[in-house]
Amino acid sequence: MHISAQFDSGNIEVVSAEDPGDVRLRIRKDPGPEGFFQWFHFRATGEPGAPCRITLENAGAASYPKGWEGYRACASYDRENWFRVDTAFRDGSLVIEHTPVCASTYYAYFAPYSRDRHHDLVARCQTDNRVVVEVLGHSIDGDAMDLLTIGADNEAKAKVWCIARQHPGETQAEYWMEGFLSRLLDADDPVSKAVLKQAVVRVVPNMNPDGSRRGHLRTNAAGVNLNRVWADPDPETSPEVFVVERRMRETGVDFFLDVHGDEALPYNFIAGADAIPDVEQRQIDLRESFEAALRLANPDFQSTHGYPKTPPGKANLTIASAHTAATHGCLAMTLEMPFKDNADAPDPAFGWSPNRCRKLGASCLDALYKVLPDLR
Amino acid sequence: MHISAQFDSGNIEVVSAEDPGDVRLRIRKDPGPEGFFQWFHFRATGEPGAPCRITLENAGAASYPKGWEGYRACASYDRENWFRVDTAFRDGSLVIEHTPVCASTYYAYFAPYSRDRHHDLVARCQTDNRVVVEVLGHSIDGDAMDLLTIGADNEAKAKVWCIARQHPGETQAEYWMEGFLSRLLDADDPVSKAVLKQAVVRVVPNMNPDGSRRGHLRTNAAGVNLNRVWADPDPETSPEVFVVERRMRETGVDFFLDVHGDEALPYNFIAGADAIPDVEQRQIDLRESFEAALRLANPDFQSTHGYPKTPPGKANLTIASAHTAATHGCLAMTLEMPFKDNADAPDPAFGWSPNRCRKLGASCLDALYKVLPDLR
Amino acid sequence: MHISAQFDSGNIEVVSAEDPGDVRLRIRKDPGPEGFFQWFHFRATGEPGAPCRITLENAGAASYPKGWEGYRACASYDRENWFRVDTAFRDGSLVIEHTPVCASTYYAYFAPYSRDRHHDLVARCQTDNRVVVEVLGHSIDGDAMDLLTIGADNEAKAKVWCIARQHPGETQAEYWMEGFLSRLLDADDPVSKAVLKQAVVRVVPNMNPDGSRRGHLRTNAAGVNLNRVWADPDPETSPEVFVVERRMRETGVDFFLDVHGDEALPYNFIAGADAIPDVEQRQIDLRESFEAALRLANPDFQSTHGYPKTPPGKANLTIASAHTAATHGCLAMTLEMPFKDNADAPDPAFGWSPNRCRKLGASCLDALYKVLPDLR
Amino acid sequence: MHISAQFDSGNIEVVSAEDPGDVRLRIRKDPGPEGFFQWFHFRATGEPGAPCRITLENAGAASYPKGWEGYRACASYDRENWFRVDTAFRDGSLVIEHTPVCASTYYAYFAPYSRDRHHDLVARCQTDNRVVVEVLGHSIDGDAMDLLTIGADNEAKAKVWCIARQHPGETQAEYWMEGFLSRLLDADDPVSKAVLKQAVVRVVPNMNPDGSRRGHLRTNAAGVNLNRVWADPDPETSPEVFVVERRMRETGVDFFLDVHGDEALPYNFIAGADAIPDVEQRQIDLRESFEAALRLANPDFQSTHGYPKTPPGKANLTIASAHTAATHGCLAMTLEMPFKDNADAPDPAFGWSPNRCRKLGASCLDALYKVLPDLR
Repeated sequence: MHISAQFDSGNIEVVSAEDPGDVRLRIRKDPGPEGFFQWFHFRATGEPGAPCRITLENAGAASYPKGWEGYRACASYDRENWFRVDTAFRDGSLVIEHTPVCASTYYAYFAPYSRDRHHDLVARCQTDNRVVVEVLGHSIDGDAMDLLTIGADNEAKAKVWCIARQHPGETQAEYWMEGFLSRLLDADDPVSKAVLKQAVVRVVPNMNPDGSRRGHLRTNAAGVNLNRVWADPDPETSPEVFVVERRMRETGVDFFLDVHGDEALPYNFIAGADAIPDVEQRQIDLRESFEAALRLANPDFQSTHGYPKTPPGKANLTIASAHTAATHGCLAMTLEMPFKDNADAPDPAFGWSPNRCRKLGASCLDALYKVLPDLR
Repeated sequence: MHISAQFDSGNIEVVSAEDPGDVRLRIRKDPGPEGFFQWFHFRATGEPGAPCRITLENAGAASYPKGWEGYRACASYDRENWFRVDTAFRDGSLVIEHTPVCASTYYAYFAPYSRDRHHDLVARCQTDNRVVVEVLGHSIDGDAMDLLTIGADNEAKAKVWCIARQHPGETQAEYWMEGFLSRLLDADDPVSKAVLKQAVVRVVPNMNPDGSRRGHLRTNAAGVNLNRVWADPDPETSPEVFVVERRMRETGVDFFLDVHGDEALPYNFIAGADAIPDVEQRQIDLRESFEAALRLANPDFQSTHGYPKTPPGKANLTIASAHTAATHGCLAMTLEMPFKDNADAPDPAFGWSPNRCRKLGASCLDALYKVLPDLR
Repeated sequence: MHISAQFDSGNIEVVSAEDPGDVRLRIRKDPGPEGFFQWFHFRATGEPGAPCRITLENAGAASYPKGWEGYRACASYDRENWFRVDTAFRDGSLVIEHTPVCASTYYAYFAPYSRDRHHDLVARCQTDNRVVVEVLGHSIDGDAMDLLTIGADNEAKAKVWCIARQHPGETQAEYWMEGFLSRLLDADDPVSKAVLKQAVVRVVPNMNPDGSRRGHLRTNAAGVNLNRVWADPDPETSPEVFVVERRMRETGVDFFLDVHGDEALPYNFIAGADAIPDVEQRQIDLRESFEAALRLANPDFQSTHGYPKTPPGKANLTIASAHTAATHGCLAMTLEMPFKDNADAPDPAFGWSPNRCRKLGASCLDALYKVLPDLR
Repeated sequence: MHISAQFDSGNIEVVSAEDPGDVRLRIRKDPGPEGFFQWFHFRATGEPGAPCRITLENAGAASYPKGWEGYRACASYDRENWFRVDTAFRDGSLVIEHTPVCASTYYAYFAPYSRDRHHDLVARCQTDNRVVVEVLGHSIDGDAMDLLTIGADNEAKAKVWCIARQHPGETQAEYWMEGFLSRLLDADDPVSKAVLKQAVVRVVPNMNPDGSRRGHLRTNAAGVNLNRVWADPDPETSPEVFVVERRMRETGVDFFLDVHGDEALPYNFIAGADAIPDVEQRQIDLRESFEAALRLANPDFQSTHGYPKTPPGKANLTIASAHTAATHGCLAMTLEMPFKDNADAPDPAFGWSPNRCRKLGASCLDALYKVLPDLR
């Protein structure tokens, strides 16, 4: 077979590909001391109708081996519709078994989201005259750090910030952005209209352009895990956080949502900032109110399963949501979506999917609308 | 202003960008001994409504300075609709004057066509069960050389080959492919149905993936002008031509069309292979018949303006169409589209455009249908 | 000018149309003793750019003269986009002043919804294999009474019924149906999936086919106001209600929503069935819970403005919602949408519009999801 | 089963419908002395998956019994996609055998084209500022006779007229109009642009609104076969022809195409006006040139099969094309499309279809472009 990963967010190394029945590949590591890896994305071209077995040999050594349990790989013939294929994790390898009906199949850890698609999203949004695009600075590779501001600012309005894809392999987060922005800019949507009366919304659809393009799991071009540097972002090695965190301090923040994907848990959930030192009860109440509204607006969201509770006062303040909650005294949360599926409402054909990410993004506006009067 | 070219086919270097009223830039050269350059593609972000003057300082030294005469630059806010903006060539510089209505504007020599879009095109086409995708080999950077074969082959069928974008900056050629393929695969189109009864069609939508992604005008990653190596393609420095030319010899060729853009002439025209040694009269007749049919099917095509005639027998056999005409004794042509506009039917708003490229691609099926019975 | 109303739901009589500056028309009455009239729908063709003044001479004698206060007529050039035009109610006439940019303009009381569009809606829905279409019987003119059942029925599921357009001139109601059905059948919508796990949904998108086609305001072909015959529907003169009410008794009803438009009030609101004899508190609580959830899901809905309260026990049991609440002991409501605009969130260009109707239809699924566990 | 024909262009009478395995129906006759009938259009609703046999008992007495030989009925679940179903003509009956996968199936002689769709077409076209809509008068039932004029008229321009659907059951003709108009108004189409430089195009998309709505095969509301009254149209009984023929004399005519469907022949062909008295050789030459160009542009068109030749001078001058050729001395033709299929390129699934009608409409612009310089 021909295996190629020479495209946006491609990541694979070929061990041997002569025999479609035994293709052997390895995932490339991110730069940086942790040597993160789990994201893969490649194209396999061969005979339509020939059964393929593709083995990712180093899967067992990946960053989150639990992520492979119950996981099924994503595949696409047309690069737009991504379905799930039979996948097993055994003997430290991830084994994909698939008989493609077309000559070329793309395989990926989750439906990829390219920089081209990012630039298209930003460009399309800015043609709405309520939107202003700002380039806050540049990534290490020189790509633009795009900020979209929706609505004119004024004293009375709540300052809402949403960011996504600090970890570039968590492409769910940018599909979430599509759903969030698309509904927010729907001129007939009554919730969006009501939100924009009371709030100015600032959005960074992609915090990590270089990692996205390069096919990283978690780091930027300098090998930095951006969601561990918010306490003191370095303009040299994490300029992406540096320019955003600075801009957040300029505008103030009343609501902050940082959108992620989680390798292991088959659920959508929120990790709050309850464990920051001197957390206010209202911060906790707001988070609970947001979660309750989101559960009602979107049954794919739940609050039963999630990360273990951090002991009070012990929050890691290098993380974006904790840092923001502490710095701005506001509601600040991390939203996690699965790579696998929502175990409460499984979809055997597609698993958790771009479309469901978009719906969750749209539903977050319902929950934001609910808490908006109490944010300040 | 923020100037960025860190994306697919980006090409610009910043001299100074502080003052929107006097942004000074330079086009980067292709690798290779000729130092080709003319293609540019960048994004400028600033205040909506502020008048911009952008000067490409080294335009006068570009490969085709005549290309700047009467040329107007392409611009887009949404990366999908590309319009023309005021442009002047004076004192060796190209000066773009434009007051954008959005914060970010993309400027380019012609509407860009990204590798993502290429991969989407190929992937979409292969979901038609009459199409088989084949990876003929890889470019120097490791990208796939995609061949689409439409229709099952058999002895009786004419062997039709179309290739595009040997010169990566001539993006017109891949928009042409979109129009050609889209009509060819329209199951209700009576011309396409009739063509596919009589011919198997092989298409290489992009001969130069690396140059396309890197933002080159004419060369591949090794600095080679691919349309000058067909006499003896080197698998090391021009693997892109090597694998295609070899495959053409395997299948045989009865019809060959190589699609290009021309910097200087504001017309669509064909450069034939009449000047190959020992040309047959039927090759010349077929070309004339093809041109006549194309003029009728698409008034944007004409045969009055074009390249000066090459003296008989003096054709440059390193060029794809001449090489193919000589090797296969078939009808082989180069189709040129303008970067500027069609002077016979000018469109002040859009000039020659992706949509018109697509229409010309679709119309070439009419002309092919006309000559098909006489190809062998 | 040429005035025409010879099409689906057309309603106008020409007094004089020679002078575009003084076109004089009259609305035709519904059959039946009440002589209802208010709905109009006609096409005026003349010179583009010529100012028109169109006077509906008998507007003052219409069924709801208060409906004309603050009302602006709907107009369209393409029959898909309907905008509002300057309209005044003076001296008992409704006067539309408009300078069309196209030759033909359609004017209507609200964006029309034709029988063709109805049949398209039903036909499109049935291609979803979760939907079964049933013809319950025929209208007086012989048109089909369509029932859509979504989801397989079983004992455990709540029985949800929604009907629309008993009053044919209240076209809002069928746009509402488009939004409701479109979201309900969206296979990726988490609320719809959750609703269909717990409920079987039965929908009559149009209760009054003949009145719709004939351009009536309120009656069927026999001149009967269908929403006043539910206590004892006559198979001869109100077969439309007869067949639906009978089917409702067969399936049982746990939730009933009857969708309408209101001529006078510029608000979306619910008229409940609190005033039926022996109403249960849980019926009242459910209605309040539904309203609260709908206010949150869609700020275009409110509970402040509405009809005056009916004294306890005095409900008119000939009305669908009261009859159903009394017969089935369930939550049963009438939803009203404005002809004018939502005064809480006015839209000067479009007023209350088909698109906003659709959004409200989609949002009612959120509110239904909220009350669903408590319906039985 | 429930059988309904109470909708636009519905035509059926129920003999018995209790047993899906033996539904017996009859086609209703047009008014008028000839008692034309062949068009049918109805909806059958029953159990999805139950085999149906539907017998049109009076098919053998229809106007063109040869039309049933080799004919297969059209069916649709969604009213947009029409496919062919097993159909036999035996013992004077037409027998449709079909096992529907949805509850409701629409059956028709050819894909129907409703008045709503007509009004949508006209309304949509007029939003192009090169188009002016004119109401030439009214049909007997009071519907508008719509004329679209494309392009500003002047002395130098050729006067092109196209009309369709004098016979309302020949719905092919209005799908042809969609294709013709859609391409003509495509601002990027080079042929359309070239045509509109040289010609003003006048189009009557539907000559017989009342017959269309009523579900007639050939006559208007007064029972008149409109294509037999052009010699002397009566404003009382054939106002549809009266107003068009008068307007044609006002503008002059250089090219005339009257679009029809033919019940018997499985081919697309042209019936010319060669047999008018004193025909000019240039009229014959132009027709031949038009046909040659159309054959090349669209292989679904042919000139081998067609009506028998009328002896010279013996043309029936009550027919639109003969009358127009004689009156205006111009190229005037009748274009016929099949109800069955094109036997030269059969499509077992769809037969001759709306989409192929549209393509033929678009292709007629190529042929018009070819003859345009020689029309005057």
